[in-house]
Amino acid sequence: MSEVATDHEVATIEAVIVSYLTAFNRGDAAAVVANYADDGVLIAPVGPAVEGKAVLANLYLGLFEAVSFDMKYEIKEVVQTSADWAFVRSATEGTETIKATGDVLPARYQELFLLHRSATAAWQIARYCTSKIVES
Amino acid sequence: MSEVATDHEVATIEAVIVSYLTAFNRGDAAAVVANYADDGVLIAPVGPAVEGKAVLANLYLGLFEAVSFDMKYEIKEVVQTSADWAFVRSATEGTETIKATGDVLPARYQELFLLHRSATAAWQIARYCTSKIVES
Repeated sequence: MSEVATDHEVATIEAVIVSYLTAFNRGDAAAVVANYADDGVLIAPVGPAVEGKAVLANLYLGLFEAVSFDMKYEIKEVVQTSADWAFVRSATEGTETIKATGDVLPARYQELFLLHRSATAAWQIARYCTSKIVES
Repeated sequence: MSEVATDHEVATIEAVIVSYLTAFNRGDAAAVVANYADDGVLIAPVGPAVEGKAVLANLYLGLFEAVSFDMKYEIKEVVQTSADWAFVRSATEGTETIKATGDVLPARYQELFLLHRSATAAWQIARYCTSKIVES
């Protein structure tokens, strides 16, 4: 492996993902999307990949209008792979509530975030894959 | 962005993922696992993350005993982010057949692969997140 991480960078990178996950949990679309790069891409169980902050903002707004989440997260690893790239793996578990019906459903997801450091030195989510564990 | 890709590397990286996806489609567990790094990690809808080639081999063997796949893939992007790291995003769509029942189900997935170049210069899957699109 060729990690070039310093403890400081790892903490900064992890903080972006914690910011994402906690904003998601409270249904704050603007705060969620603020963690993305302008050309960030979301891969999620809801449909084809969603590209770019404007489209992402609409998606999260619609999601949070329909569903509320009560999830606990666990950061599994934070790895800086170069000066400008890193990845974070996490897992989330809890419940999601369908607002229209009040149904409360157990939910487990796993996340893989790819982060890129922008020209202004901010770590941002460049690509993000969230995988829902299908209960069998 | 700070891509350092050459066309040659991009083609080599893409070939690893095509090798994975086509081996998966024909249910060839050994050929699937050959594309992983020794400490590769799979994030999939089937349960918690699966780490390491030995455990991965068992998982794919069990999966292919239970399910056969007939999927078409599309490579969405191939990006080399440093000398030793790259990512590939793809989408797959088709059917999965539950062997015990013969049920044939439509299936759509999206994939995010993180690849690392090993000491022997082979590109291998270091982390892989596959997200199943939940049909609503």
